[in-house]
Amino acid sequence: MPLLHENRLFPADPSACDIAKRIYKSVRGLPIVSPHGHTQAAWFAQNQPFPNPAKLFVQPDHYIYRMLYSQGLSLEDLEIGAPEIKNPRKVWRTFAEHYYLFRGTPTRIWLDFALQELFGLNERLSAETADVIFDTISEKLRTPEFLPRALYERFNIEVLATTDSPIDSLNDHRLIRDSEWKARIIPTFRPDSVVDADFAAFRENIENLGKQTGEDTGRWKGYVRALEKARARFKDLGCTATDHGHPTARTANLSPKGASDLFSRMLAGRADAQQQELFRAQMLTEMARMSVEDGLVMQIHPGSARNHNRQLYERYGRDVGADIPIPTNYVNALRPLLDRFGNEPNLTIILFTLDESTYSRELAPLAGHYPCLRLGPPWWFHDSPEGMMRFREHVIETAGFYNTVGFNDDTRAFLSIPGRHDVARRMDCAYLAKLVAEHRLDEDEAFVVARDLAYELVRRAYRF
Amino acid sequence: MPLLHENRLFPADPSACDIAKRIYKSVRGLPIVSPHGHTQAAWFAQNQPFPNPAKLFVQPDHYIYRMLYSQGLSLEDLEIGAPEIKNPRKVWRTFAEHYYLFRGTPTRIWLDFALQELFGLNERLSAETADVIFDTISEKLRTPEFLPRALYERFNIEVLATTDSPIDSLNDHRLIRDSEWKARIIPTFRPDSVVDADFAAFRENIENLGKQTGEDTGRWKGYVRALEKARARFKDLGCTATDHGHPTARTANLSPKGASDLFSRMLAGRADAQQQELFRAQMLTEMARMSVEDGLVMQIHPGSARNHNRQLYERYGRDVGADIPIPTNYVNALRPLLDRFGNEPNLTIILFTLDESTYSRELAPLAGHYPCLRLGPPWWFHDSPEGMMRFREHVIETAGFYNTVGFNDDTRAFLSIPGRHDVARRMDCAYLAKLVAEHRLDEDEAFVVARDLAYELVRRAYRF
Amino acid sequence: MPLLHENRLFPADPSACDIAKRIYKSVRGLPIVSPHGHTQAAWFAQNQPFPNPAKLFVQPDHYIYRMLYSQGLSLEDLEIGAPEIKNPRKVWRTFAEHYYLFRGTPTRIWLDFALQELFGLNERLSAETADVIFDTISEKLRTPEFLPRALYERFNIEVLATTDSPIDSLNDHRLIRDSEWKARIIPTFRPDSVVDADFAAFRENIENLGKQTGEDTGRWKGYVRALEKARARFKDLGCTATDHGHPTARTANLSPKGASDLFSRMLAGRADAQQQELFRAQMLTEMARMSVEDGLVMQIHPGSARNHNRQLYERYGRDVGADIPIPTNYVNALRPLLDRFGNEPNLTIILFTLDESTYSRELAPLAGHYPCLRLGPPWWFHDSPEGMMRFREHVIETAGFYNTVGFNDDTRAFLSIPGRHDVARRMDCAYLAKLVAEHRLDEDEAFVVARDLAYELVRRAYRF
Repeated sequence: MPLLHENRLFPADPSACDIAKRIYKSVRGLPIVSPHGHTQAAWFAQNQPFPNPAKLFVQPDHYIYRMLYSQGLSLEDLEIGAPEIKNPRKVWRTFAEHYYLFRGTPTRIWLDFALQELFGLNERLSAETADVIFDTISEKLRTPEFLPRALYERFNIEVLATTDSPIDSLNDHRLIRDSEWKARIIPTFRPDSVVDADFAAFRENIENLGKQTGEDTGRWKGYVRALEKARARFKDLGCTATDHGHPTARTANLSPKGASDLFSRMLAGRADAQQQELFRAQMLTEMARMSVEDGLVMQIHPGSARNHNRQLYERYGRDVGADIPIPTNYVNALRPLLDRFGNEPNLTIILFTLDESTYSRELAPLAGHYPCLRLGPPWWFHDSPEGMMRFREHVIETAGFYNTVGFNDDTRAFLSIPGRHDVARRMDCAYLAKLVAEHRLDEDEAFVVARDLAYELVRRAYRF
Repeated sequence: MPLLHENRLFPADPSACDIAKRIYKSVRGLPIVSPHGHTQAAWFAQNQPFPNPAKLFVQPDHYIYRMLYSQGLSLEDLEIGAPEIKNPRKVWRTFAEHYYLFRGTPTRIWLDFALQELFGLNERLSAETADVIFDTISEKLRTPEFLPRALYERFNIEVLATTDSPIDSLNDHRLIRDSEWKARIIPTFRPDSVVDADFAAFRENIENLGKQTGEDTGRWKGYVRALEKARARFKDLGCTATDHGHPTARTANLSPKGASDLFSRMLAGRADAQQQELFRAQMLTEMARMSVEDGLVMQIHPGSARNHNRQLYERYGRDVGADIPIPTNYVNALRPLLDRFGNEPNLTIILFTLDESTYSRELAPLAGHYPCLRLGPPWWFHDSPEGMMRFREHVIETAGFYNTVGFNDDTRAFLSIPGRHDVARRMDCAYLAKLVAEHRLDEDEAFVVARDLAYELVRRAYRF
Repeated sequence: MPLLHENRLFPADPSACDIAKRIYKSVRGLPIVSPHGHTQAAWFAQNQPFPNPAKLFVQPDHYIYRMLYSQGLSLEDLEIGAPEIKNPRKVWRTFAEHYYLFRGTPTRIWLDFALQELFGLNERLSAETADVIFDTISEKLRTPEFLPRALYERFNIEVLATTDSPIDSLNDHRLIRDSEWKARIIPTFRPDSVVDADFAAFRENIENLGKQTGEDTGRWKGYVRALEKARARFKDLGCTATDHGHPTARTANLSPKGASDLFSRMLAGRADAQQQELFRAQMLTEMARMSVEDGLVMQIHPGSARNHNRQLYERYGRDVGADIPIPTNYVNALRPLLDRFGNEPNLTIILFTLDESTYSRELAPLAGHYPCLRLGPPWWFHDSPEGMMRFREHVIETAGFYNTVGFNDDTRAFLSIPGRHDVARRMDCAYLAKLVAEHRLDEDEAFVVARDLAYELVRRAYRF
């Protein structure tokens, strides 16, 4: 029995299932466009083999180690946070013994997809099968077919965007671009580390930004110019978008003097929490202004309380300390930015949320009105079958399909990319099949929309 | 192929679909009761032909022009806000070319219903069919069968309520009442413009209210008496309900002295935003007191941030400036009013929301306890198939069917009324069919409930 | 025709329905574990017959009298709040005449279950059948088979937990334990009445706690020691859990000096509302510390505005005054407690909510990370078919099945226990059948998970 059924995620009702299959058949082979993610350009620049299953699947995937940790396993046993994994087979076995914890989660579907479709395995991961699966994967990873560039081609990726700091050298991107290899791997401009004073090295980062751009980032005007120059440098390497992961969606519209004074206070380390928040808010509006000028698409990802687990954060640092979503307001928060730029024809802002109560209440009504706004796909915890269905059910009736932007995988786990896009395509087909089966959409239109959701909308929104 | 399938909106599963069909057959022909909407009494008083398809379908329908605007079309091109449409065929063509944007939205279902059921068309609206559909509709609009009164009768409307300012002359309602024509078209008392200082002409309106009623509205007591007189005037013309569209559901219970002082401050233009909010809050409680006395049913529609798009508001004024829902609290907000009148046997308050997170958390528990409270149908953005299903799924298990009040169409587009009620009836049947198919309700009971939802509950709640 | 269909609550689709039936067959006969409820130990200590249908079904059940009250019936007519019911047949008839109000609610399913499965009735309750059903139930209640202990055994209960004040004598529990009868009926430690100054007798309760434990509860240290001793007394009688029904989930982490000063202020009656809230917050953290030491599992049930209906509260007191849910925050509220104890291996905290918007936004991400956190089943208004389905759909993809704890009935109505557990088991099977039918879970795994949800998880979480 295969790990994955060919009709997985489609409606149980036979006629609706048949509709979903027909639609899916028309989109399953479309190229993958991945406009937002956390893969590393270095993999493709260097094209070295991935080391082992534990390093590949367990260590980078916070979905996996969160769940294991929640059930009492220690991060030490999983070697999370270690630069190298000393005992990958042991880590893999621990994971395999606890694979039952992932029943009913998207992690299970993504991993089963990789096991079956990439590695040709058809036995469920468990204590019993841990070793043979470990060995099979390890062996394949040493073959040329499993080198990063070969996988990129096998995955039929058309564009792959990484996420990068403004002070990143982007050398790996340059290496790829200068190589013979024809792939479109592009950076995304993510300035949080020079905008958000919660980052430990905030002031150093700004200093480095100054050095890199030849601007005096000790002053507001130089700081702004440095950001503009950094954006231009990213654009030169194919970048089409920025990304902003603030705690809230708050924006502000200070006078130039007000912004300048606030910046000085930030640099002097005299800004309290409210002023730091105001600075982030002001910077979203500044970035919108830059986007109107240089055409980069803005992505806003608010609503996560970072590093919630204090003990883990103190021990392991950012990204292990458990980020937890919080209630998020968009209607009042975005108003200062929208007052200035909401009707700009050249601006695109893609909004994401971790607070699903905003889908129908705030996001769909906003995106269904403002010409600059589009809605990103269900994000993170909501990048799941039920999460996707809820997104469609709450958003489409008000915003329509054409104020959404297709799927992004947002992943650190390169090998999960095809599996994640497959889930998204299947769920979109399941949703469309439901509409067709209930005579809310004609089948000929569902085929058009399915292609739009899988391929066209993302290219249009991200200006690829 | 017809535009609309006869089983549209019913469950895909064949046996559940059959149940839905049986139930729907028993309610599809019931008269339409429309207790809340924004049609114009003048149409029926004058009984003149509707001018053209653009004026009829595009210009009054903010669902339509919001979506078009969100995708970059200009309001000028659509001639929104203009008193007359200079080039109706061009506006119609623009709409038709972008009709694909409405895929998956209720607007699409409502319009297809009107095209097929009222105009006998069976081709999908598109760039290709725009002209022939424009011509067909235009031609029919000039026939006697499409005059407002003829349509009212053809739609099998039993009651139609408009929404009116307290200082409206209600002359059109009087003309209808004094005519030979036997129809029940009644006003609804909506005092926002003399209660909410956000209205530009707030103080003028209050002055006019004084003139009209012969009361000194420069003082609190006279203002209150003037409102009571205005309500009586509405009641004489058949009015059974009031309507209150405040930003929040907040109520207050000030002393007579406190209310009087606050009113003076309001009139003097010295009230800040908080005091304006407090005044609105106090007035809801005053209105509840009046309702206990005169028996008018209260409708409370809170939770919309009005005129969100500043640039459009400054250019086009109210109702084009994009209202966006905001989080809404009912539990604390309604407490002062409920403390005084919550257990009054003669009071009915119908609550609406744009914040679906309150359905199961606040509204169903409140309506499932307080004798004066009832829940209005899913409103505005939630007047949609998914919105209706969510409403039922979140509300009925706690509040039951009998603390809800059936459907209202809330529309400015007269020709969409039958289509909107048809969607509501179908979705109620779909929900009931699901309950029956899952053996959560017996089929004989589902027939009774379907009739209650389509016809009886609205008549009872609005005291028709 | 029976009142209840054998496939009730299963999916309408035939193949999914068959899967649900197969899974359900494997769990329907498992013993009932009831870790949280409000039955009375006295019933089992004394083993006297239950008096009559009105006393048994109507008077203790706030689900029932809320609904009747919301539709204009008076509490006097229902004899709610009276120590005895003078005219039980009249109360029963009133209930029967209004039984249609419960269409589509879980109350209807629970009661129909009791009528059919316990009393062998198969006619729907109504004005017509009220008397014959009253007589049948009354007669059976006088038979030995319907004595409390006989029913306990017939229900196949393995553990039954009551909810008790720290100053309760627990004599009835002791009587049961010392009797020949082998049943596991255990108390739960619910300290709200000595922690929450909203309780009328707050200070008296604390004084009594001191007397009972021989500690000086006039001082912080004595108060804390008294609580520890009371917990030990509960543990001796089999108690494994505490329960905390605060208005919010707020926790605090004061210094010993700060806690001591705040306690003195509380006792002196000088604490304002904010300080009372801070004291409750501090006490949750104290209780967590005690749980780390004595191993009692914590249950936190926040988010209810108690006694919302002032007039009823003034007349009837607590628990009739209509508690209404309010928006609830967990992410910030729990932080002080989690900062101290979030990673403790010996701590289990079970979180409940009345605010469903927190399921996917806060609760699942928290429980999917912190080793001490588990999620309780859908509570109160959400203890319903749709409520259970939403819980699973919002929670499982992030937290998995194994961070949840099975079902609890939370009931005051002993005879509703089997019906409530049956609904929960059926809905879990319906959810699992959906996963299997959509190929998101293999059927062999669904059988394992179904047993876990019905039996194993609750035993593990509550340490039975």
